Amino acid sequence: MADYIEGKRPVIEALRTGVPMKRIMMADNVKRDPLVNDIQRKAKRFQVEVQLVPRKKLDELSERGSHQGVMAEARPFSYLGINELIQQANDYAQAHDGRALVVLLDHLTDAGNLGAIVRSAEAVGASGMVIPNKRSARVEAATYKSSAGAIAHVPVAQVANLVQTMARLKDEGFWIAGATEHAEGSIWDANLKGKIALVMGNEHDGLSRVVMESCDFLVKLPLEGEVASLNVAQAATACMYEWLRQNQA
Amino acid sequence: MADYIEGKRPVIEALRTGVPMKRIMMADNVKRDPLVNDIQRKAKRFQVEVQLVPRKKLDELSERGSHQGVMAEARPFSYLGINELIQQANDYAQAHDGRALVVLLDHLTDAGNLGAIVRSAEAVGASGMVIPNKRSARVEAATYKSSAGAIAHVPVAQVANLVQTMARLKDEGFWIAGATEHAEGSIWDANLKGKIALVMGNEHDGLSRVVMESCDFLVKLPLEGEVASLNVAQAATACMYEWLRQNQA
Repeated sequence: MADYIEGKRPVIEALRTGVPMKRIMMADNVKRDPLVNDIQRKAKRFQVEVQLVPRKKLDELSERGSHQGVMAEARPFSYLGINELIQQANDYAQAHDGRALVVLLDHLTDAGNLGAIVRSAEAVGASGMVIPNKRSARVEAATYKSSAGAIAHVPVAQVANLVQTMARLKDEGFWIAGATEHAEGSIWDANLKGKIALVMGNEHDGLSRVVMESCDFLVKLPLEGEVASLNVAQAATACMYEWLRQNQA
Repeated sequence: MADYIEGKRPVIEALRTGVPMKRIMMADNVKRDPLVNDIQRKAKRFQVEVQLVPRKKLDELSERGSHQGVMAEARPFSYLGINELIQQANDYAQAHDGRALVVLLDHLTDAGNLGAIVRSAEAVGASGMVIPNKRSARVEAATYKSSAGAIAHVPVAQVANLVQTMARLKDEGFWIAGATEHAEGSIWDANLKGKIALVMGNEHDGLSRVVMESCDFLVKLPLEGEVASLNVAQAATACMYEWLRQNQA
């Protein structure tokens, strides 16, 4: 299933944030205006082919009917194999006093949360992210924007079975920390030194039971308020920075 | 300037998330459907008056033309006076081993970021937030959703001059910590014990120079990535949790 970006400004935004593109399609009767000129300039700079097509073709491909005579076809995101991802994390640990972080997402559904976590993961130097290949938010053209471009720098692996991946990571010397409000101790009391796989749960249900049971230990961020719930991307960021803090100096 | 919510589902969502409302206006010829019935049920439960009005009136008030025969008028948000906010923070400190947190936002422009910070501030037990009364995102009906309802539990003060407020806070025994990538030391090396006012900068320009110069000290979250920038709400969350960590036990 191809991933299309429709409309002049969205296509410009996608070129600007570095979404890899197969091609840009332009209606052969599109009106030249500053936005169209900008698209052609940027397409040339980033070496993306611009094809002139009958407007009818865009009408057919368009999902929202807002193409304004311009659509871009994004390249499918290149997921990394889980073996390579683990290899890269091990290499990172060797070069960084033994520390490495892999972030696993247990069926997050919100694409904006995925992008936000990718952005923070890149900022702390995480080696990669692992997401399930079903019933989960995946990397789309929009992730380039929601991650502020960081998705181009963070490897993501898609796996069929998160629990099997957790077992693989354990074999490779990672400790598996599950973030959940059901944890008994705070994340500050946990030992996050070294190679850590941090598992974050779904927006509504948190970690699934089988995932929770496969963790080496559980951690939580204390909640001091009255309504007291954290957005999963905010919680992930605070947890990832706690990992970095414990591994500094 | 009144704050209107238009459309059946947005009005239901607003009732659900607790947006305080003056009234709901319904076109006198609106078609009864399950959504309209739900609005009337919820309005009754939350004691919000439903007025039947000519559809023309909604057309006039509507900004987006998507009212579907239903609009709600939100009550203006009740900002707290800065004196009361500081008083509440001092009271909180007395009851919590001397710790208190006030978060100042130096002209954030994105309403979603404001809501996200409010949500995390509530989670760490912050005593309140301070925002400028001009050129700044402010609390709107949408903040109830973006903060997941937390805005009803976090006092917010609007001030004319952030630097004067910082001076006030210093007089009251708060240390002013400015979050900026220009900081020399990491936040982990800073002393965040006790009464802290944390200042977060604008999405594009960070802290303004005059605000930065008025801080007692500057802190940053280390960036280990290649593109390496943090969303301001994510950064605020990590900083607020570091304050809570240093003040525990």
